[in-house]
Amino acid sequence: MNILKSAEEMKAWADKVHSQGHKLALVPTMGFLHAGHLSLVREAQERCTKVVVSLFVNPTQFAPGEDLTTYPNDIDGDLEKLKSMGVDAVFMPTPDIVYPDGFDTFIAPNKLGQDLCGASRPIHFRGVCTVVAILFRVTRCDSAVFGQKDYQQLQIIKRMNRDLHLGVDVIGMPIIRENDGLAMSSRNAYLSATERQQALCLSQSLEWAQRRVKDGERDVETLSNGIRQQIQAHPLASIDYVKLVDAETLEAVRDLEKPVLCALAVQLGNTRLIDNLVLTPLPAA
Amino acid sequence: MNILKSAEEMKAWADKVHSQGHKLALVPTMGFLHAGHLSLVREAQERCTKVVVSLFVNPTQFAPGEDLTTYPNDIDGDLEKLKSMGVDAVFMPTPDIVYPDGFDTFIAPNKLGQDLCGASRPIHFRGVCTVVAILFRVTRCDSAVFGQKDYQQLQIIKRMNRDLHLGVDVIGMPIIRENDGLAMSSRNAYLSATERQQALCLSQSLEWAQRRVKDGERDVETLSNGIRQQIQAHPLASIDYVKLVDAETLEAVRDLEKPVLCALAVQLGNTRLIDNLVLTPLPAA
Repeated sequence: MNILKSAEEMKAWADKVHSQGHKLALVPTMGFLHAGHLSLVREAQERCTKVVVSLFVNPTQFAPGEDLTTYPNDIDGDLEKLKSMGVDAVFMPTPDIVYPDGFDTFIAPNKLGQDLCGASRPIHFRGVCTVVAILFRVTRCDSAVFGQKDYQQLQIIKRMNRDLHLGVDVIGMPIIRENDGLAMSSRNAYLSATERQQALCLSQSLEWAQRRVKDGERDVETLSNGIRQQIQAHPLASIDYVKLVDAETLEAVRDLEKPVLCALAVQLGNTRLIDNLVLTPLPAA
Repeated sequence: MNILKSAEEMKAWADKVHSQGHKLALVPTMGFLHAGHLSLVREAQERCTKVVVSLFVNPTQFAPGEDLTTYPNDIDGDLEKLKSMGVDAVFMPTPDIVYPDGFDTFIAPNKLGQDLCGASRPIHFRGVCTVVAILFRVTRCDSAVFGQKDYQQLQIIKRMNRDLHLGVDVIGMPIIRENDGLAMSSRNAYLSATERQQALCLSQSLEWAQRRVKDGERDVETLSNGIRQQIQAHPLASIDYVKLVDAETLEAVRDLEKPVLCALAVQLGNTRLIDNLVLTPLPAA
């Protein structure tokens, strides 16, 4: 497994495998890999003959006061997992490689970044778009695989890829969950035992909404209020947002005429968790 | 000469000439071509074996109330000039090609865009960076040639090209002037005869500053005040800014220790003109 640290090393390796006729898939991560990440790696291996995984905790997507400095890491464990999966290369730059002296250029979404996580984390998607565009350009990837837990992020990256003609096949993969339903996240490591228990309110309220939709409910306010009540029944949980929006445009909707993204952000103690589910309306009777 | 209107046509032509072993240079313009633009085309022809010129009045770099709707144009004249110079292709997309439905991604400079033209035109460089990155990606150019009249723009584009690893050789070319010194600009067409006469205060005050530097003057405030006085002696001229800044970082300086960009923006009636000169200090005695 090739460990690549500079942009030049990364580009040279990518050029080499391309000249050998390979297609290259990128799995961008911030490390501390769990089964969700590994499902992205497996998909990347299905799609392309060479796979590079990036490990980079991107400072520009964290606001002051967020968990940049405490973000969990386990480089040795990550490299072991990736090696045992047969990953071809790992790109692990330091911040000064990605953001050299005098770095001054940022990419940001407009409308797609304003609501949901963008409302509580105003610089977050600017950091995400900027680092993802740089990773696309430096790894010279043909495909890139992202998890749908960060649904808004995925939509923004797809749009950026189209708008700026970055030429990457951007692939979204389903959320991977623990046995009890909790969406896998590196940040789950922050949770105390009681927070971990109450964190189930995210997935359980989404499942409740899905059952209601299967029973014929189409009113967004009813679903949203129901989810809020379920979460508020957990004393350690504090809602950042509960939103039902058009699954494509992320714009507000009133009822389920088209697929609707139901997205949640909930604070458990000091830990902010997100989860989501796309609710598809029943065919009209 | 190939007239290319869609992104797909442009990419296909670029792929074809690349597959034939050519290198491709882009000259991005907003049309209404003058001798300044044509000097960029000649440089492009020196640098690469194929040249594409883009003609696109980019709406996102104009604020409401600026001259987007009145920007001068002469498509037939432009095409004739480019054809007679042996240009290989012209890319002339409509706004909906560059900014398709749902377009949502913008690139902006941070520090480099804050002062000078960025101070009076806050969204201008965001529009410039966005369209230039799109043109780089769609034309698949190896080199791109820009005029130094838009000095701040050139610095911002060079930085963007580096920061986002766009991989283009960005070339800046000297300002081309009328015989009496006025920097060539499509916007000169807006000037009345008396405005045209008084517009010479830009180039003449820059020349004055250069003479003062050759006489040993190194104090930025003295030079700046002198330029202001010269411009203010012209009743139709109204100063937007007179700035002397580090020619590389565009940061404020107090004296001429290193090359200093002297940049002016002056309103003549309803027409905003810019001009600049890099002042190089005399070697210490």
